[in-house]
Formats: sequence, C-alpha cells, structure tokens
Amino acid sequence: MTETTTPRLRTGGRAGRQAARASHHIARVPFLTRSLAPFEVLNEEGLATIEHNADTILEQVGLEFRGDPDALRLLADAGADVQGERVRFPRGMCRQIVQATAPRVFTQYARNEANSVQIGGTATVFAPNYGSPFVRDLDNGRRYGTIEDFRNFVKLAYASPHLHHSGGTVCEPVDVPVNKRHLDMVYSHIRYSDKPFMGSVTAPERARDTVEMARITFGADYLEDHAVILSLINANSPLVWDATMLGAARAYAEANQATLLTPFILAGAMAPVTAAAVCAQTLAEALGGMTFVQLVRPGAPVVLGSFASSMSMQSGAPTFGTPEPALVLYAMAALARRLGVPFRSGGNLCASKIPDAQAAYESAATFGPTILAGVNFVLHAAGWLEGGLAVGYEKFVMDADQCGMAAVFVNGIDMSENGQAVDAIVENGPGQHFLGTAHTLANFETAFYRSEIADNNSFEQWQEDGSLDAAQRANAIWKRMLRDYEAPPLDEGIDEALQEFIAKRKASMPDSEV
Amino acid sequence: MTETTTPRLRTGGRAGRQAARASHHIARVPFLTRSLAPFEVLNEEGLATIEHNADTILEQVGLEFRGDPDALRLLADAGADVQGERVRFPRGMCRQIVQATAPRVFTQYARNEANSVQIGGTATVFAPNYGSPFVRDLDNGRRYGTIEDFRNFVKLAYASPHLHHSGGTVCEPVDVPVNKRHLDMVYSHIRYSDKPFMGSVTAPERARDTVEMARITFGADYLEDHAVILSLINANSPLVWDATMLGAARAYAEANQATLLTPFILAGAMAPVTAAAVCAQTLAEALGGMTFVQLVRPGAPVVLGSFASSMSMQSGAPTFGTPEPALVLYAMAALARRLGVPFRSGGNLCASKIPDAQAAYESAATFGPTILAGVNFVLHAAGWLEGGLAVGYEKFVMDADQCGMAAVFVNGIDMSENGQAVDAIVENGPGQHFLGTAHTLANFETAFYRSEIADNNSFEQWQEDGSLDAAQRANAIWKRMLRDYEAPPLDEGIDEALQEFIAKRKASMPDSEV
Repeated sequence: MTETTTPRLRTGGRAGRQAARASHHIARVPFLTRSLAPFEVLNEEGLATIEHNADTILEQVGLEFRGDPDALRLLADAGADVQGERVRFPRGMCRQIVQATAPRVFTQYARNEANSVQIGGTATVFAPNYGSPFVRDLDNGRRYGTIEDFRNFVKLAYASPHLHHSGGTVCEPVDVPVNKRHLDMVYSHIRYSDKPFMGSVTAPERARDTVEMARITFGADYLEDHAVILSLINANSPLVWDATMLGAARAYAEANQATLLTPFILAGAMAPVTAAAVCAQTLAEALGGMTFVQLVRPGAPVVLGSFASSMSMQSGAPTFGTPEPALVLYAMAALARRLGVPFRSGGNLCASKIPDAQAAYESAATFGPTILAGVNFVLHAAGWLEGGLAVGYEKFVMDADQCGMAAVFVNGIDMSENGQAVDAIVENGPGQHFLGTAHTLANFETAFYRSEIADNNSFEQWQEDGSLDAAQRANAIWKRMLRDYEAPPLDEGIDEALQEFIAKRKASMPDSEV
Repeated sequence: MTETTTPRLRTGGRAGRQAARASHHIARVPFLTRSLAPFEVLNEEGLATIEHNADTILEQVGLEFRGDPDALRLLADAGADVQGERVRFPRGMCRQIVQATAPRVFTQYARNEANSVQIGGTATVFAPNYGSPFVRDLDNGRRYGTIEDFRNFVKLAYASPHLHHSGGTVCEPVDVPVNKRHLDMVYSHIRYSDKPFMGSVTAPERARDTVEMARITFGADYLEDHAVILSLINANSPLVWDATMLGAARAYAEANQATLLTPFILAGAMAPVTAAAVCAQTLAEALGGMTFVQLVRPGAPVVLGSFASSMSMQSGAPTFGTPEPALVLYAMAALARRLGVPFRSGGNLCASKIPDAQAAYESAATFGPTILAGVNFVLHAAGWLEGGLAVGYEKFVMDADQCGMAAVFVNGIDMSENGQAVDAIVENGPGQHFLGTAHTLANFETAFYRSEIADNNSFEQWQEDGSLDAAQRANAIWKRMLRDYEAPPLDEGIDEALQEFIAKRKASMPDSEV
C-alpha cells in the first residue's frame, strides 16, 4: 500500500455512525495546564551569559525612566544610580528585588470565578488580539474599528471555548473619543463577558478609571488581595520606560493589580538584529520595569513580557513567522522561568493582510513556539493580522481553532491502559480494520480534535459544497457565534453603578483625540 | 508605546538602503544539521512501556508476511515462530537483529556528490511530496498528473535551495502506462536533477529496474558500498507486510540500497485511535520490516518510518494538522533514537484541497514537530495537498519556503560575541534606534530569514500590488523557477545508456495499467 493510493473511507462504519449521532464536547478548561517540559534552545551556560549581559546593560548604560520624578526617587532609594532620568542598576539589584517579592504564580480572578485563570507555572492562558486600529472581515473588508466591533470581539472571545481571557483593546473603537473609549471598552468586557480582562494604559487616570470600575464590579476590598485586572505595560525600547506607561503601571500596582512588563522589540530598529542581543536587552528592560512595580508595591503581580519581531530589510516593516523571533521566544521563556516570574509572549502573529496561507504559516511559526516554550499568558492568541494593524473576524475563529488544538497537545500522550490499548491490537489481528472494535467504539468520540473550520471531505464533496476556502468557512462560524451569543448575567445594581460612573466620567471632560 | 500603534518604518535608513543594494545568499547546505536537542513528549518509563507493548504485539499476535515464502523461511531460520504466513517474534528478537547490523547513520549519495545527504543522527533531509495522482495549480486547477508535471516537480526540487532530495513519485504520471512509468520517473530524477532520489516499489522487477538504472549512472561496483537509492516500503497496517513491498524491499536490500520501512496508519482504521497504541503498533510493524531487510542483507541501510494521521469521525477521511499525530511523531522519533536507526516522518501534510489557510495551519502543525522531533528524512516536505491525493505547484514553493526557515531555526542562537552584541546595546544608549549602527550594518544582510512569498509591505502598498494572496505570489515564483531552470550536466554516454535501457525494457512488455 502506498501512502497516497489509500482509498478514502467514505463511511466510518458502525463507529462512525455512532459517533456522528453523539455530540462532541471536550470539557472546557479555564486555562491550559501543560504536562510537557518546555523546549530549550540554550543550555545553562547560554542562559547565564544572557543574564550576565542583561546585568551589564543595566549597570553600564542603564534605563531611562522618563517624565516621572517619583519613579526616579523610588529607584534611587532602592540603590540605583540615578543621573537625570538615566538609572543604572548595580549588578543583580533588579533580580534580587523582583525575586524577593514578585509572585511566581498568581490568579487573575474573573467575575465568574469558574473563569479565573492561573498566570504562571504550568498554566497557559489565551487572550485575543490587542490594539488594532483596523478590523477586517470578508464582507466589508478592512475598515476602522468601532465600539460595535469591539463588543463583537468581546462576545466572540466569550463564546469561544478555546479562549480563556477577554483581553483588552481587542480593537480600537475609533468612533469613541480617545479620552473616553477606555470606559466603554472596560464596560464591554464586564458586561458582555465574564472572563478576565485587561485595563487601560493610555494614561494613568484611565488606569485609575479601570481600577474604579473593577471595584464597582468586584467590591473595593476584594481588589486588595485579588488581581482582577491584568494590563499591558510596554517599554519604549531601547532602554526607555515613559511617563504614560510608568503612570499606568503605578496605578495598577498601587491597587495590587497585575501588569505585563513588555519590551516591544522590532529587531534591527529597537535592538540589534541578533537573537542573543534581543534577549539580553529584553531581559534588562523587563527587569527594570518589574523592579519599579515591586518598589511601588512589593508583591504586586508582574509578568515578564517579550514581543520580538524581525524586520524586512527592504522596507523596515516588521516581519512575522521567521525563525529568529521563535528562537528569542524560547530563550526568553527559559529566562523567565529562571527568574521565577510568569512569562508573556507569542500569539498568532502575522504580517499578512488577509487570512490566507501566509497568515496561517506565519501565525503557526509563532504559536508553535508559544506552546512548546510554555508561555503563560498569550496575548494576540486570536485575530491578529497585518502586523497588528488589523484584527480579522475570520482570522479570530481560525486562530481560536488552533488554541483548541493546543489544549489537546499539552496533555501529552495518554499512557493509561486504555491509551496503550495493547489488547485491542492483539485481539484484532493482522489485516483487520479497527473501525468497529470495542476500543474504537469506546474512544472514538473524544479520540481526535475536531476542527470546525477544516474541510476533510473528499474533493468532490468539497466542490459540491461550493469549493470554499478556510476563510469563507470561518466567516459563517463567527456570524453563527454572534447570532447565538447570550450575555452572561450581570447584577443589575452593578450594571447601573458602572453606567453611572461612566456617565459621570464622560461628562467631566470634553472629547479629546489624545 | 503600545504594540500596534508602532509606526511602520517605511525605510530602513542607511542600513536598509545598503542591505537592499546587496543580494542576499544564505549558503546552501546539502542537508540540515540540527544543533538543538529534540523535544520529548514521553519520559523514559513511557518510552520503555511502548517498547514493551511492541514486543507484546510481535510475540502474541505477530505480523503477517504475505505471499513471500522466502521471507517466511528467512524469518523462521532466524528464530521466529512461523505458522502459515503469521510470524511471531520472541521478545527482543527484532531489536537485537536490527541493532546488530543496521547502520545508525548512512549517506545517500547523489550523482553530484555535493548533494549527497546524511540520513540519521543530527541530519534532517527534505524531500518533496510523494505519490499523488493529481496535481493542482492556480491556472489549471486540479487534474491528473502527467510526466510533464513529474519533470516540472523534479526541476522545482532541483532548483529549490531548501529541498535536499529529488524524492520519488512526486506525482503519478498517469499518461504513462503503470508498468513503464517507473522508467520515466527514475530517468527524470537522474536527468533533470543531481540530488539524491527514490526508487520504484510498485513491483519487485521495477525495483530491480531502478537498481539497474542506478548502476548505469553510478557504476555497478559503486552501489555495493554506496547507497544511491532510498525507497519507500509501506506496511499494510495493521500488522501485514505484503508481497509487493517485501519483494521491492528485497531487491533494494540485495543491492545494498536503502529502504524506509513505514507503517502508514490512519488511526481508528489501521490501528486503535489512541496515540500510545499507534506508537506501539508502528514500532512493531517497522521492527518486523527492518528485521526482514537485515536478514536479507545484514547492514543494508534502513530507516524507521512513521506516517500517522487522525481521522474524521463523520466521514472516515484522514485528517491532518490535529494534535494527536504530532504526539505520535514526537514519541516515534524518540523510539527510533533509542533503537539506533534513522527516522522518517512528518512533512507539510494537510487535508485542504487548496493552498489556503487550512493548508498552511495543518502543514505547520506537522512540520513544526518534524523539526523539533529531529526527523531525519522528511518525505512530503513540499507540495502535499488533499491528504496526498494532489500535489500543488503553489503549495510546493510555499512549503519549500518553510523548509528554508527550518534551516535557520535548527542552528539555534548565535552566542558568539557578535551574536551577543552587548557593546552595540551599551554604546547605542536609551531611545536611539539601531538602524544605522555599525553592528546592524555589519549583520543586516544575513540577520533574518527572508521569505520570497510573504508580503510584509504596508496595506496600501499591498493593495497597489494587486491585493494578492500567498498562493498568487507563489504562482509567479514556480513559473519563474521553471523558466530559469537549467539542467545539471549529465555524461552523454550515461544518458544514452539509460535511454537504451529504458527503450529495451519498454519494448519487452505490453502496456499495462497494473
């Protein structure tokens, strides 16, 4: 029998019919728990060298903490050498401060506690795309995002069994003034989902608004010892933390809420082009940011973030799906483990403008490493297109499907007696198919991940069904998900209080586009 | 700075301009040499359990060796319990025979020795798609393959720097009678490429024709101690080796040529649905096949093959890109390493009918594990569509691009001083971009893998260029490759002798479609 003259089995026989009758539900889990050891690309010596280099960077050139005199005072008091806005750290200082108080693992609580997620350790949490000004779907193409799009993506993430988190700025709702849109975004996460969410970081007062809305939702005291907001604090690489990000980070840390401290590095522009250099600089910048947060409030949850992309030498544009950032991802995951803090990276990243083969190859080239490196918090797990400039409806459901596959993969191989199934093989004998055996019948329904999007039919059947591509099938799926969406219950009193808060805040300031 | 408001850099500055002027050549290597330890999904205990189960299968139920009395005699003489065509092996017998004489690593020689490949150890060799009756391209859609298509794919594999091997039945040339097409196929590999190739296995005499053509090309004596043919011998799972495959394997082994002994398992049909069971059965079947080859000619190169797919419970069709076969792949790679033989698996497999996002996600879900598991010989590395029923021209160049990325990835992180680039970071300082720094200028040209297919331009530029998808760009690439193709030199005397041999063989038998 050659590999390709294998006849397609058009019917699964008794087992197939039986399975087709049953509906298939893989138990939804609030986050993945990996059972496999992470893949390593550097040995102990290589990792120690990068740590040494990060310390050299922190010691010799240091970081700038811009526009935030309080931050400079805090860092100087802790032992850093502060000259103007330049902060140099004695070797080992940052590591010591972070390791002394930052939790290795923490829980981000959702308003539905069944959806609370563990951040760190062997947990992996999938959150949707973040920050795109544009949205795309097959019907209307590419256009600016609106608050309606925003709500749609919140609903899709809520409805998807494969996403664990509602995310943050899933798209920019550009039809709402910049200085007010955070209120509508945070409200949407609370109102249309009961999964955990992210807060605003575009200004310290918007971070404080986010905290206030969380207090209304969860109770003010609750936040003191429960992280319910996780927010993205990006470095302004190379080697700069700016006032906006420091202010937002401070607002969250003061409320004991969690932050992702993430150097965003387009290698060649914000760092040297080589992977080892990107790693050392990322580690240095993240250590500086996490140190600041721990000084603001010791014990406030922090996540070491890494976002690294390669670039096109023709245009200077970010490129995705290349092997170099994958190597950075693996190394950074190992460095976060050694430091003892949760790690954020990865996602389904691509440069493609549309959900085509380029988008999928590129996304998989980041998402594979995301899973095998053991990333704890995966932003951009679904929807990302065009280097993040757009979030796609079809791409969202395609990527969510990949998240579902990862949930199976991380469980590894079932080595139970049932998994080994030696008797089933021995009893069946040579040349007899397994379609109707007792073992197959007992295991068929949950044996294999079933993609909603993939078409596995015969060529003829596929043609008869309209010769659709994956994006066209995904188009039908997100529409069905929105049609079937039902909002989770929300206490009316809380809802009113939130709306009142939003109305008051909106009334307190004129519209502004900054 | 948020991750998505990062302005696209439209120009790479000095570095970009300089790099754009230079042409970029990554040195072509005849095969990949991996520097990273393979990813493991089972621990020592799990792997030992599967080995034990394989022995249980071989001992208790055994394998059938059908229609080949010589094989039965050989196996009985070596200590197997032979009842009719059923052959049961005492525990450990197969392992002992294989480990005693099968090489851990061998070289498959190409007629251009610069293209000879190492099979086994840390080497990975990419070979194209195998066995599809249909071909597909954007211009003409799906149609039966012809000898012209076959030649085209040989030329494309020859022209691609990312493929190391010319493969075998890259497509079925259905315009040539079945009993004669092997002659045209083998001739095409020799005439239009100088990379290593695979032989015919559809009948023992066709295998002998392949050997004869190799003797004409390389010299008869040369074959005695040089493997120049590598051929695909598939088990008829479950637990059967049939006369055709045994006969072909014998023909190659007698000539000291290499074989891939590959159980082809659609889990649920040819084996139980569980990964651990698929692994044990695959190992048992492959051990039986390799034992037979070692008995025919001790020391003849063999490769342990594994081809496992999941299936759709709706239709019974094979499914690809699911997590379960990836787990099988990782485990089988580890089992082959423990046995001490080279391993064949993986590829860019998919069920999609067209080179869309489904094709790419699915392909990547097999190809990623292929690389991280350390597969030695990767059949179907480029072109596979539709569960192997079709090979696509566009898919071929897309997949080859992924092979190129893997070549970079397997080198791991450059930890040289230049790779670490600490000084470049320290000297550059906070807030200064790296586009024009000395380190960037010195490294830019080789810093990042450059895909020929990916479009990384701005949305506006992409629109201006016609809003093409990846398949449309790939279409232009394969056409250009065929247009630019130049045949490698072939000694005229050898060419004449080959043509004479083919003419004589064709004249010796009437056309037949079996």
